[in-house]
Parts: sequence; C-alpha cells; structure tokens
Amino acid sequence: MFFNILQSKFNKGIQIVQKAVSSKSTLPILTGIYLQAVKNKGVRLVSNNLEIGIEYWVKAEVKEEGSIVLPANQLSNIVRELPSAEIILKVELEKQQANLKCLNSEFVLKGFQADEFPKLPEVKVEKNFKVKVSAFKKMLEEVKFSVSSDQTQPSLTGGLMLLEDNKTSMVTTNTYRLAYSWFKNDNTQDEEISFILPGVTLNELSNLLDGEEELELLIGDSYVCFNFNEIIFISRLIEGDFPNFREVLPGQYKSRVKVDRKELLKAARRVSLIARLNSNVISLKTTEEQLHIKPVDSEFGDAHEILEIEIEGNKEGQNIDIDAGYLIDVLNVLNDDVVLLEFISSINPLTVSKSTEDDYIYLIMPIRPGA
Amino acid sequence: MFFNILQSKFNKGIQIVQKAVSSKSTLPILTGIYLQAVKNKGVRLVSNNLEIGIEYWVKAEVKEEGSIVLPANQLSNIVRELPSAEIILKVELEKQQANLKCLNSEFVLKGFQADEFPKLPEVKVEKNFKVKVSAFKKMLEEVKFSVSSDQTQPSLTGGLMLLEDNKTSMVTTNTYRLAYSWFKNDNTQDEEISFILPGVTLNELSNLLDGEEELELLIGDSYVCFNFNEIIFISRLIEGDFPNFREVLPGQYKSRVKVDRKELLKAARRVSLIARLNSNVISLKTTEEQLHIKPVDSEFGDAHEILEIEIEGNKEGQNIDIDAGYLIDVLNVLNDDVVLLEFISSINPLTVSKSTEDDYIYLIMPIRPGA
Repeated sequence: MFFNILQSKFNKGIQIVQKAVSSKSTLPILTGIYLQAVKNKGVRLVSNNLEIGIEYWVKAEVKEEGSIVLPANQLSNIVRELPSAEIILKVELEKQQANLKCLNSEFVLKGFQADEFPKLPEVKVEKNFKVKVSAFKKMLEEVKFSVSSDQTQPSLTGGLMLLEDNKTSMVTTNTYRLAYSWFKNDNTQDEEISFILPGVTLNELSNLLDGEEELELLIGDSYVCFNFNEIIFISRLIEGDFPNFREVLPGQYKSRVKVDRKELLKAARRVSLIARLNSNVISLKTTEEQLHIKPVDSEFGDAHEILEIEIEGNKEGQNIDIDAGYLIDVLNVLNDDVVLLEFISSINPLTVSKSTEDDYIYLIMPIRPGA
Repeated sequence: MFFNILQSKFNKGIQIVQKAVSSKSTLPILTGIYLQAVKNKGVRLVSNNLEIGIEYWVKAEVKEEGSIVLPANQLSNIVRELPSAEIILKVELEKQQANLKCLNSEFVLKGFQADEFPKLPEVKVEKNFKVKVSAFKKMLEEVKFSVSSDQTQPSLTGGLMLLEDNKTSMVTTNTYRLAYSWFKNDNTQDEEISFILPGVTLNELSNLLDGEEELELLIGDSYVCFNFNEIIFISRLIEGDFPNFREVLPGQYKSRVKVDRKELLKAARRVSLIARLNSNVISLKTTEEQLHIKPVDSEFGDAHEILEIEIEGNKEGQNIDIDAGYLIDVLNVLNDDVVLLEFISSINPLTVSKSTEDDYIYLIMPIRPGA
C-alpha cells in the first residue's frame, strides 16, 4: 500500500470520518480509521463506532493498493499539524505500520489489521427519497437539543423522523418539553413512514451537513443511510415506540404573545441567574401590554423583568411556571426577530413558535404549583 | 447605602476584583465582593482570598453611604448581562440585601454583613520602587508557566523576585526546568532584595497589567502591594528558601544553534504527538547544518523532523534528551523569529534564549539515558 495525497484533502477527509470514531472502546480497533487505497480512485476512509459509521473517498495518487487501520487521534493530529504539501504514505503490511513523509517530517504509526475492522452495515433499502441538505440541517438543529438523556427510555434519546406526503418532520422530547420541526418537499408518499434516529446521529449529521446540495436517504429495517456531499453516513435506528406526540399538541390558544426574541432571551437568562440558585423555575405573567418574568422561588434572591409585548386573543392575564432552561434553549436556536408564545392556561403547555414561518412548534410543560 | 453607577464601569470594576475572589471557600463571605459607597468618591470594591486581595474604586453618584458584601458570581453575571445603562443600587441593611434596578430589570441579591469581611492586610512598607507596567508584565509572562505544582516544596510554587542595582528579575523552577527573566531600570539599590511571590500572584497580576503606565511596588515583611492603573493588588509572600539558581546557570556553551522559532515549535509539537504516547521525551541531535528531532522511545510509533540551522562554536554533533513539553512551553511564550539553543553536553542543561535581546535564559535539564 503506497499513495501520495495532498495534506489539505487528507486532513478534510479525516475530520469528516472522525465523527464516527469511538473515543474509547472495549474494541481498540474502533478507535482507528480504516484506509483503503484503490488505483485510479483514491483512498477510502471509513469509521464505525457501531452506532454510526462514515465512509468518504479522498483523491490520491495510488501506486500500490492495500488497506490498514490507523489510530484516529494520532493520524488526525499529525496530518493537521503537517505543512500544506504532499504527503507520501507507505504501509509495511508485515509490520502493520504506516510511514508518513511530508517535506522534512517523517512519522511511523502502528496500525491494526484491516480485515479485523467491522464492516459498515449493509442497508437493505426498503424506501429511498431525496431532500435539500439545507432544509434537513435546519430541521435537525431545531430539535436535536431537546432529546432526552435518560437511558432507561431509549426511544426518547433519539428523534422520531416522519415521512408523510410532501412533508418531512422530526420530533424530540424528554416528556417535559417537545420540539417538532418540519419542511415541505416533493416526495409523494402513500403511507406515513416513521423511525427513530439516535441523538448522536442528529448531532454529528447536522455538523456535517453543509451547502445546498441534495441529501439522499436510504431507509432499511435497522439502519438508515444518508448520502450527501460525497459522504456516506450510516446510522443505527432505535427500536421501540415513540410517544404519540400529536396527542400532546395543544388546541386553540387563549392568548398569543408577540415578543422580541433577543430581548426575551436576555431577560430569561438574567432571571435564571437567580432562579437557578434554586430549581430554575420562572413564572411568566402577561398583562395587557407587558410580560413579567420572575423566579418562582425567592429564597436566595429575587428578580423581575418586564418586556413590552403585543397580545392577540384573550387579553386577561395569563400565568405559567416553567423551567427557565427550556425557554432559553429554544430562544438560542431560533433566528426570528419576533417569536410567538401561546398560552391556554397555567396547566396547559406553553407553545413557542416562529412569527415568520409555520414549520416549528416547541412545547414547554408547565410546572404545577407545589410540584 | 444607595448609589447610581454606569453598567460598563461597574462591570469593569467587578471583573478586576473578581480575580481575587475565592471560588470555593470554607469561609463563604470570601466568595463575595465587598462594596463601600463613599460620597464624592464613588464605590470601593474589595476582594480577598487570603492569598491575594484587590481593591478598586469605581466612579458612582453616591446618595447614601454604606457597605455590604454581595455574592461575586451572581453580581458579576447579572451586571455583565444588564443593558449598557445606569444601574441604581440600594441596600436594605436590616435585611442584608441589595436591590439593583436597570431599565426594566430588577434584582434582589442576598448579601453578607460588611464588617465580617476580612480586611486587606496592611503592608508595612520597608522598601518601595517603581517600574514600567509593560516591562514587569513581560517578565511575569516569561516565567509564570514554569512554577512547580508540587505543594510539598512551597517555595518552588512561586517566583523568586530579585531587586538589584538597576535590574529587576524573576526566576521560577520545578528543578527540571528553570526560567529567568529580567529588565533594566533606574532603581539604584545598595543591597539585593529578594522575596517569593505565589504562582497565583504571577498569573492574576500579569492578566491585570496593561498599558504603559508605572507600577509601584511596596514591599513589606509578609506582603507586597502593587499599585497600577488605579488598582491596588496585595499579595502574600511565600516563606522559605529558594534554590540558588545562579549555581545551575551553565557556563560557556560548546555549540550555539540559531533556529526559526515557529518551525522548531511546529516540529517539536509533531514529534510530541508520538513521544507523548510514552514519556514525552525527545532527542535533539545536531549535525553541521541540521537539527534532528525524534522521540526517544519508538514503542508506539516513531517520528523524525529535520530543521535547517546555523551553528556557532563546536560543529561536532551535539545530542541531548529532554521533555518535549518543556521545549514547547518556552517556544510558545517567546516572540522572537529566531531563538538560540546552547549545548554543552548531553548531561548539561540545554539553554534557550532570545536572538534579539539579552534579558532571558531558560534551562531544560537533560534526561539521562536509562533514567
């Protein structure tokens, strides 16, 4: 195995596949990157932590074919630090080690045997469709922060993806809050398809998605494959049932508040500085033209923020107690100058949505007095 | 106690004194900032973690005098997040709490009783002198990274400051490396004065020093006071003896190498990526025109970097084994394009110094083969 490769291209490829490398593993070979040199094609880089796997081809002048697994951390650190020039990589297969040369620098890396690296799962495609990378990325970013970290309910640690006629959506919830984002597309669909993607997939995928290209989804029984920007990204699916989220979507609001997003974010953050000394619960109260925010508990201090708002619907005062962190999270993710808060009563969820588009609903469950 | 203060000025003052606030303390009041409002003067802010203490006056319109201690973290977070406008601070002394108002935001902070806050130590001045802030800051930055973290040798956890005729210097060492920096000034001195400043003082002081003003040092028996930019910074001194560093300063070099600092830094960092898989020891070897760097141990991989150099003195090959981290640290701190490496033998210290100025010596002790 012997190839020449540009440092910048090699570095880019390594950064991409590194997102699916195990940081620590009972199987040491999973902390490595699989390299396969193929004449007239280049070098195939593969990573696989058994939850997600990534494959990416880098252009290279391959002089001798072959494959090896090299330690991902060492390889990525070394290649990143090398000068922007041509790297010559030669593998001594009998010693299972690679020799890297670049100008006046030379490295020997001890590797693993390539045939011991677990193959990426084959996705038995039952359904495939295409969407815009940018729309898909937006959807992931609007829901990924809201997955549950409670490992005893595995299905909530992922996001429910829904394919309906001309509509793609995703839902995440930890039962105390719920994020629901969607976009329209041209994919006609006879019946609804749904599956649960792990939280790590939502995160790593949204970090890799970039640009205005198309993303192809190949959906199998236990795995899904995403093809985009020459990257092949395979994710395990989470088995189990996702709660029926449509049941918790609230009906008609009583009061709808229009409020400046940044002002609300700053005010919520300031009140949270006091509220978090206790349980981080804040109360929102509306009057005809104002929104008042206070910590529910004033044992260790107090705060009071007043924001100017516009109200539609019932102008009689609304009052709800919520976790400040759940409000801050969604205000950090949205981009709109103005957001909508919809109130029904102090025991119904508070809804946060966009003022510019009808493609997102975020629910915060109320904390009942005395709870 | 009642005053009006600009958010920007209050914020700046709090950031300054916060550097001497205890993060955690058995004495909770030390996690607070002491505020004293004085008519026609402003607000005095004081912090004191019993190792260092800071005092700083902020301009304010004082309507009622008084003092209180407020929790530093809450106060700094809230003031930083408030809009850039006037803050009105009123203290209800009987409740030991402060009320902050700024536009539509209002906060209540629970405080501590001011008279329970430990006073800053009085420095019984035995000697005072003045130096340039910029020269003093440079000296601190060139040595502070080299203090020992070994608490069993307290004197090595600080920096030895030396006042000689027309010369101010500082030395830090952990016995495996030593940094010695100095600058010339106009302070005449009959006899040498020396004392040991804690590592935390070197760090926090160098972070606060800024600009081209003068720094006044008031030296007492157990404390030193630094006055600069309207900041009063008091530091405890470390008792005990500092090693006689002059004894370890090497004599005449055998070979002096001129090498590009950034190239040497990059090469050392790359070799360290392999060397740190083991003990992070690297070998430096000179030939007539090159410097070769390799990890001493190649159990987990290997590396080899070659740098072009100029040699003065003995051109026969030199060879020394050192800790890569110690070399990287000093190359990160220096600014010179070209640095000097001075070799005597493989069992004498390696010296790193500047090519542009004679105001710095850094020693790295060799690691003897088999050690």
